[in-house]
Amino acid sequence: MKDPAKRVMTMSPFLVVQILTRARSLERAGYKVIHMEAGEPNLPLPLPVQEALQQAASQPMGYTEAGGMFALRERIAAFYANQFGVTVDARRIFLTTGVSSALLMLLASIADSGEKVLIPDPGYPCYRQLLNFLGIIPEVLPLAAKRGYLPDIAQIQQVGTQAKALILASPANPTGVIMPSNRLGEILAICQAMDLFVIMDEIYAPLTFDEKPQTVLAINDEALVVSGFSKYFGMTGLRLGWTIVPEFLLSPLETIAQNLYIAPPTPAQYAAMAAFLPETLDELEKRKKSFQARRDFLVANLQAIGFKVPVLPDGGFYIYADASAFTHDSLAFCHDILEKVHVAITPGEDFGSYDTKTKVRFSFTAPLDDLQEGIARLKRYLNQYLS
Amino acid sequence: MKDPAKRVMTMSPFLVVQILTRARSLERAGYKVIHMEAGEPNLPLPLPVQEALQQAASQPMGYTEAGGMFALRERIAAFYANQFGVTVDARRIFLTTGVSSALLMLLASIADSGEKVLIPDPGYPCYRQLLNFLGIIPEVLPLAAKRGYLPDIAQIQQVGTQAKALILASPANPTGVIMPSNRLGEILAICQAMDLFVIMDEIYAPLTFDEKPQTVLAINDEALVVSGFSKYFGMTGLRLGWTIVPEFLLSPLETIAQNLYIAPPTPAQYAAMAAFLPETLDELEKRKKSFQARRDFLVANLQAIGFKVPVLPDGGFYIYADASAFTHDSLAFCHDILEKVHVAITPGEDFGSYDTKTKVRFSFTAPLDDLQEGIARLKRYLNQYLS
Repeated sequence: MKDPAKRVMTMSPFLVVQILTRARSLERAGYKVIHMEAGEPNLPLPLPVQEALQQAASQPMGYTEAGGMFALRERIAAFYANQFGVTVDARRIFLTTGVSSALLMLLASIADSGEKVLIPDPGYPCYRQLLNFLGIIPEVLPLAAKRGYLPDIAQIQQVGTQAKALILASPANPTGVIMPSNRLGEILAICQAMDLFVIMDEIYAPLTFDEKPQTVLAINDEALVVSGFSKYFGMTGLRLGWTIVPEFLLSPLETIAQNLYIAPPTPAQYAAMAAFLPETLDELEKRKKSFQARRDFLVANLQAIGFKVPVLPDGGFYIYADASAFTHDSLAFCHDILEKVHVAITPGEDFGSYDTKTKVRFSFTAPLDDLQEGIARLKRYLNQYLS
Repeated sequence: MKDPAKRVMTMSPFLVVQILTRARSLERAGYKVIHMEAGEPNLPLPLPVQEALQQAASQPMGYTEAGGMFALRERIAAFYANQFGVTVDARRIFLTTGVSSALLMLLASIADSGEKVLIPDPGYPCYRQLLNFLGIIPEVLPLAAKRGYLPDIAQIQQVGTQAKALILASPANPTGVIMPSNRLGEILAICQAMDLFVIMDEIYAPLTFDEKPQTVLAINDEALVVSGFSKYFGMTGLRLGWTIVPEFLLSPLETIAQNLYIAPPTPAQYAAMAAFLPETLDELEKRKKSFQARRDFLVANLQAIGFKVPVLPDGGFYIYADASAFTHDSLAFCHDILEKVHVAITPGEDFGSYDTKTKVRFSFTAPLDDLQEGIARLKRYLNQYLS
């Protein structure tokens, strides 16, 4: 029968895309929208990366190896040594078409249809969708504000029996919480005992404000890491990420990568060769400082107008705020704010179902001026429409 | 249990990658290898595309929409009007991360695990692997040299009951055969009657030597087309393709694309904006003429040294030759040729199991000098080692 596959019915689009689509249509109608929905700084590529991309244009543009250019994998290995103080064999670093493909390939290489994988709730929406796509059963690990949005051992033991893997992120999306090393160590130990793979999403790892960046590999070399160039390195649209895996997973990854992608995009790989230059890192550290200032401004001002921030984000691009004083239907709330005062924010429901209907996520990637205007508009909204 | 997924066991790497890996190791050891294995011309990007990529470096590099920049989709629509004389609504064109992702998303959006899809044998190896990845059952449609490597209606009726879709390619890989319009019309009609989706792989469509390029959309607007910038446009490493679908598949594609890819690579989209400029198309038509000369040289000379070419390739990059005078184990034959005279070619077994052990595929993307040297070495191999 010529019907779409049922597989698609198990997947849903990001709710934030509804918001973004409506925001764009308001913009086409001439309104200025304040964007605090997407985790994407509106900044040009760092200059040395721009130059590398320009120079790449006249270079050979064929496919690279399925796992990417070895010289770039070596630079990533050097970055792990400098940034995190860990030694990683470059052969264990596999370049991917963004973190999306790193996650898809890893999940596909470790779990079959009908098996279970634990995911955090709230958590990055794609975890659940990618599992649904693959026919793997998502089992949620509820993260409570009162526990600092951290998973606890008893929970993992309870829901993790017969699961194949656990996905965690640090700093996490949407909460910005960094997993403390002692808790992480405990979780790794229990997962080892339960024979669970641990997938650690470290896409925000270098973006920490109050602590030194960390990687799970400093604690356990067997953990599966996904990361990439989209967030800290400011190269979102280039679609380049990586995964670091134990040797026995390299061959499965290679087979999947060849058939699903052939290879990650070549221009992005040339450009990323400049991502670790001292000039680039200087620029990125400056940007990080400005994100920190934006976070501080936004947390203080959201609290001042009546949002609660149960856990201060230590890293990443987001504040996960409690809007229970205003709503118990965050999706409707976000749509209403967008319609009335043209501020785009993301409903908690995008990230799961555990206590998410009273939560909203604010991205602090926009310039400070925009955030100030956003706060003024939110204040007006709360006074005018909710009092 | 911490084991790789069984899913991976159902997939296999391209055999040509074994050849390529060994070829690279010979090159590192100082040997000159003649490359006739991969379908990748060793040419720089067309100049206007290089310039577009250079200029893109300083542009915003965020994510585009999941289906790509609308302006580029409009240019592709204009190309279909100019090149093929068909009108395509740009909204039905969905940009993808190479043809690989177009195929994966299309298959995922129309067939569920356990359902069947028909694929040609011999055919592009990824068809089978992507189906295996998705748990969809590949049902082969054997293509015989004596029938010009074309599927026939009775075959489709016989193996296609209860299948969900049929994948075809024109010009085909590895045979280079263009599906004649009348045969294609018959196949489309029978698929319509059997309620089968038809996926037409047109990645080689503009690369025809003896006939005008054609698209299935000129015959049937409901067919699902995959194509891209890798082959005719010479932009392999940029990983940019597209699919053209009926409107009811746009929403499933969008959901899958958001979750699996977010969006296709942004630099590639900027670069591709220059792919349809008159200067670019002039350059590409010149390249096509040189590929035609290489094809003509290689066909004549392969025949002269004892290979048979049962069906002359009308398009694409490949000659699918019958080596039955020399071998009934094409994989061993290809490895032996590589070891003895350092010529890399692809074993027929990469493309399926129907009469493939006596076949080898020659790519004619290398410069004429290399092809001449390749023929001389093959002649020496046949005289010295097989007589």
